[in-house]
Amino acid sequence: EEVARLLQLKAQLDGDDGKQTFVLKTPKGTRDYNPKQMAIREKVFNTIFNCFKRHGAETIDTPVFELKETLTGKYGEDSKLIYDLKDQGGELLSLRYDLTVPFARYLAMNKITNIKRYHIAKVYRRDNPAMTRGRYREFYQCDFDIAGQYDPMIPDAECLKIVHEILSELELGDFRIKVNDRRILDGMFAVCGVPDEKFRTVCSTVDKLDKLPWEEVKNEMVKEKGLPEEVADQIGGYVSLQGGMDLVERLLEDPKLSKSSDAVAGLKDIKQLFVYLQLFRITDKVAFDLSLARGLDYYTGVIYEAILTQAGVPQTQDPQNGPGVEEASVSVGSIAGGGRYDGLVGMFDPKGRKVPCVGVSIGIERIFSIMEQKAETSAEKVRTTETQVMVASAQKNLLEERLKLTAELWDAGVKAEVMYKKNPKLLSQLQHCEDTGIPLVAILGEQELKDGVVKLRNVTTREELNIPRDSLIEEIKKRTADC
Amino acid sequence: EEVARLLQLKAQLDGDDGKQTFVLKTPKGTRDYNPKQMAIREKVFNTIFNCFKRHGAETIDTPVFELKETLTGKYGEDSKLIYDLKDQGGELLSLRYDLTVPFARYLAMNKITNIKRYHIAKVYRRDNPAMTRGRYREFYQCDFDIAGQYDPMIPDAECLKIVHEILSELELGDFRIKVNDRRILDGMFAVCGVPDEKFRTVCSTVDKLDKLPWEEVKNEMVKEKGLPEEVADQIGGYVSLQGGMDLVERLLEDPKLSKSSDAVAGLKDIKQLFVYLQLFRITDKVAFDLSLARGLDYYTGVIYEAILTQAGVPQTQDPQNGPGVEEASVSVGSIAGGGRYDGLVGMFDPKGRKVPCVGVSIGIERIFSIMEQKAETSAEKVRTTETQVMVASAQKNLLEERLKLTAELWDAGVKAEVMYKKNPKLLSQLQHCEDTGIPLVAILGEQELKDGVVKLRNVTTREELNIPRDSLIEEIKKRTADC
Repeated sequence: EEVARLLQLKAQLDGDDGKQTFVLKTPKGTRDYNPKQMAIREKVFNTIFNCFKRHGAETIDTPVFELKETLTGKYGEDSKLIYDLKDQGGELLSLRYDLTVPFARYLAMNKITNIKRYHIAKVYRRDNPAMTRGRYREFYQCDFDIAGQYDPMIPDAECLKIVHEILSELELGDFRIKVNDRRILDGMFAVCGVPDEKFRTVCSTVDKLDKLPWEEVKNEMVKEKGLPEEVADQIGGYVSLQGGMDLVERLLEDPKLSKSSDAVAGLKDIKQLFVYLQLFRITDKVAFDLSLARGLDYYTGVIYEAILTQAGVPQTQDPQNGPGVEEASVSVGSIAGGGRYDGLVGMFDPKGRKVPCVGVSIGIERIFSIMEQKAETSAEKVRTTETQVMVASAQKNLLEERLKLTAELWDAGVKAEVMYKKNPKLLSQLQHCEDTGIPLVAILGEQELKDGVVKLRNVTTREELNIPRDSLIEEIKKRTADC
Repeated sequence: EEVARLLQLKAQLDGDDGKQTFVLKTPKGTRDYNPKQMAIREKVFNTIFNCFKRHGAETIDTPVFELKETLTGKYGEDSKLIYDLKDQGGELLSLRYDLTVPFARYLAMNKITNIKRYHIAKVYRRDNPAMTRGRYREFYQCDFDIAGQYDPMIPDAECLKIVHEILSELELGDFRIKVNDRRILDGMFAVCGVPDEKFRTVCSTVDKLDKLPWEEVKNEMVKEKGLPEEVADQIGGYVSLQGGMDLVERLLEDPKLSKSSDAVAGLKDIKQLFVYLQLFRITDKVAFDLSLARGLDYYTGVIYEAILTQAGVPQTQDPQNGPGVEEASVSVGSIAGGGRYDGLVGMFDPKGRKVPCVGVSIGIERIFSIMEQKAETSAEKVRTTETQVMVASAQKNLLEERLKLTAELWDAGVKAEVMYKKNPKLLSQLQHCEDTGIPLVAILGEQELKDGVVKLRNVTTREELNIPRDSLIEEIKKRTADC
């Protein structure tokens, strides 16, 4: 931070010709997307959109900022990370911190009790950025939620099916989906002797188990959260458990845990969930895991998180924050997460009417990072345009003929480019095709114009063939049908 | 404003059960997009994306906020409309006001000298909103720009071709594209006797000619801007002129105007532009119009603006601002605009290196408004999902069979929905199809399960046919191929 400030100062002093006296950069924790990154982003989005549409979801959009009071009291300790707008007169505003709270506000405001919607948009957190690992201050969230009063666990199972479909289609490597229930955690805390008022804070400590070893987590429970050591040890016994339907059955018989009606309700729901996951044929990737806690306050029932189990993400160093231990272990980690939040909409309703909701958020920035790194190492070049043909000429004074033909192609729906030069060299026109992956060149010359033909060149094979002008459009479409 | 404050206070007092003590709304000048609006938005975007891609453009994205200093000094008087973020420690930030300045910053920062790019994203202006007319504080801009040193007027002509293609394809009604050149305006001011330092301010007065009659504009020039009446009258003589190539020729011979080298350079470029527009076969919609001035400071050459010439936009009243005279006449108006800005990138370059640019911005919020109103009056229903088939049953206890079949369909790429109820009524399942436009229902019953078939029902015709389970996917795909 200090170094950045000094560099900034230096740059200001360097701007001695008066042309530029400021640093040319994007704000901390943000980035531009260049055309190649956009091409990858579009591909990922399309896979995800198609999945959401396959499941019959609608989409909505909300403003990038909300009234400050809409966000107040929804994020617990993380509220300090919210970006506020300057008070310039009028309403006090904040940038959205996630898409879930605006969704709940939208439902309450429009009195909607049933909807299956997705929303892909940027959210804002004044967090410590770790950009090489896809952690930014401005980042995309990609949410799918089902709101409505339904029979238990059916929409919840669909959310997991969606995670399974998306992660499979994107071919990010092997993954696992951990499942738990807030009521099981609460019941477990109760029977282990954690006082009620410490449930949430102990829960955030448990949430660190995916990054820290048990010993450190226990240490935090005892030293920072003030739990007696034997209480911590009992919790330790439970949170080490993971399994499938068998574990659910076993815990339903657990003499201690079965005394908590919260825990029993949670376990019964997990059991029902597994029945549906079996019908969806995805249980091979799903594990019931008592260490899963999830950070956010608003979850009320089932929670889940998908992790990549292969070290698919290279451990590149982050120039801003260095390779901290925590950072490094995060980098093979959570790629999607969500759960049930039955109380959030009620917080916005004047009468407190509840709309049960369950949803999932896909960690799309992480996915972008992985896909970008894959593209770097892949032999296949990422195209940033879809141009099918370049209208070129080898001779001088044919600009007008080139423009005329290009317009004809555009009007016929062919994706075409032409150089903005009166007399470009043929070589530079061909080079542009090589560089950007344009497969065809339509070459005009005096002779071709006389003969009423166009020379169509395949950029890869270098084959050239005279095509009658009348059938040029058809020929181009035929040859690029698979592009 | 005062009334809004009182209503807000009242609403707070009404929240007497303590559940909600704040107003449930989006910030002033912003709106949510509901699923129907999103469906229309997607359709408009696709038309525009396709056009940009047809012309070989790449796309980029930039952060929603920039360093405050990046925006400083780019917007003249309008700078007061910029949203600033609160100083929470660290950099001072502002929300982007348009996409052009971030584009110029991107080019300078990455030392890019050639690019053809489009960018569709939201921008922010603390302006007086007129929401029913598509004027918001948060709104989309949709920009296409060509940066690079090329032979004159070729990229400029392509920008106009793009406007022509997009407005034609969207079928918004008849339109006209006005063209002028900043150098012609400057030359005209000079030969009419306007002092140099008043060029920009007189230019903004001329810009009002599309909303105000000449008498009022003249009044402003004389009374507010302090021009002698005879100077204003001379300007009035020029700005009433419009035409095509013929007018260009005439003005090149104009004894007064031809004395200005600026004006002559502008006129020669307009002449060359018309040659290219003829090759693109779009001159029927284009008029050279000396009254066109455009608001923004940074234009340096050709400028243009497209207007709808039919009263396609109903004159609905704006609840917030009332039907002011200015408002009403704006509502049939500018739908796209742009021009050449050869100096902007240089403002960001440490050495002041220039990158010539020309671009166009499509007034997409306006287009949304028109399309939404069209959809309201149209008999055709806007679908908000793409679901092909609903998996249903008439009998009880078939939830698991429904889920199993639905998962099979999803895995085969079929867009399918299922009700999240154990035993939904057949009627409510069919009603959902009618409501949302799902064309097919796959009905499961005990008998069908025994026979290894599924009853496929056409929702519109009510025809039902038993299909062997093996060929169900193929049959659904065949029947919905044109959806």
